Amino acid sequence: MHAPPIQRLITELSKLPGVGGRTAQHWPSTCSAPARRTPSHWPRRFARSKLRVSPARCASTWPREPLCRICQDARRDGDLICVVEEPVDVISIERTHEFAGRYHVLGGALSPIDGIDPEDLKITELYARVRDGGVREVVIATNSTTTGEATALHIAAGVRELAPEVAVTRLASGLPVGSDLEYADELTLGRAFAGRRAL
Amino acid sequence: MHAPPIQRLITELSKLPGVGGRTAQHWPSTCSAPARRTPSHWPRRFARSKLRVSPARCASTWPREPLCRICQDARRDGDLICVVEEPVDVISIERTHEFAGRYHVLGGALSPIDGIDPEDLKITELYARVRDGGVREVVIATNSTTTGEATALHIAAGVRELAPEVAVTRLASGLPVGSDLEYADELTLGRAFAGRRAL
Repeated sequence: MHAPPIQRLITELSKLPGVGGRTAQHWPSTCSAPARRTPSHWPRRFARSKLRVSPARCASTWPREPLCRICQDARRDGDLICVVEEPVDVISIERTHEFAGRYHVLGGALSPIDGIDPEDLKITELYARVRDGGVREVVIATNSTTTGEATALHIAAGVRELAPEVAVTRLASGLPVGSDLEYADELTLGRAFAGRRAL
Repeated sequence: MHAPPIQRLITELSKLPGVGGRTAQHWPSTCSAPARRTPSHWPRRFARSKLRVSPARCASTWPREPLCRICQDARRDGDLICVVEEPVDVISIERTHEFAGRYHVLGGALSPIDGIDPEDLKITELYARVRDGGVREVVIATNSTTTGEATALHIAAGVRELAPEVAVTRLASGLPVGSDLEYADELTLGRAFAGRRAL
């Protein structure tokens, strides 16, 4: 999934006591994030160290080449773009084996209170990909949080204005697999009801 | 929601140290469950004590009358039946304010390993309600567990055979509201993908 140096970094970091693979996956992006998003206690020398990779031109993951491995893979469906917040979300979705299209990583979610506006995310780059044509569907897979939902609505409106023929979809909200109705919160259960489907 | 004696029992039980309202809600049905489902350490005298209410003829909740309060309410849509496993699920769904139909409580889920077969649940009673006519949709809201899913498929097949014109639906599976993609398990994320909807 990752470029070899990133994968090595994650493997080495996850050997530290108390650090698992999931935690370590976040660290490469934290190292290269804009200064205001890097924790102030982060050791300066580590924060300034340069990684030998950078976000791909295709805005997917962290490769050494201009295009990430997924975008280089000709077997994948270029008509489908899945929009996620962070590179780590690509890995979660790949594990499901449900998606055979390409990704677009925004680099976060809209959050005016934290000073994250549309210009701070790779939204213009997404519109450019849609404008280039050949896109059939944009699947918005931002988190199911307030900021993730706001980002989804913002992008959906933008894509619809730009290319009304492109389908814009959102991941289903509902009960997690293996869960009991009784312990679901009201909002989730309400969404599961509203989104019920023929069996 | 409950008949007054049940509500009083729940209120009193939930005053015990370490017992919350959700736990206490289970106890009235445990007291009246068939012997093999009652824990063996359950004090005999309490297990044998008779509650002054019994499951309703409409198989919804625990009223003093033959029909539960929800089924007595003429403002509710009689064309819609929501099938749940336990009386406590009715309360969870009522809290969402998303459903204005009536309920059918099965009294559990199919689980051959625990000796719970279709005859042990109120499935025949559900088919009788469908056969009586006037039902437009059966919403199957069993838990999203293995036994809940098996029960849903069993009931869906039965209703389709009995009345092909009745719509059979199932609550949406997907990401709970407020959750991050990264922490969703693969099955849930896969279902959220497969069930994506136009935005």
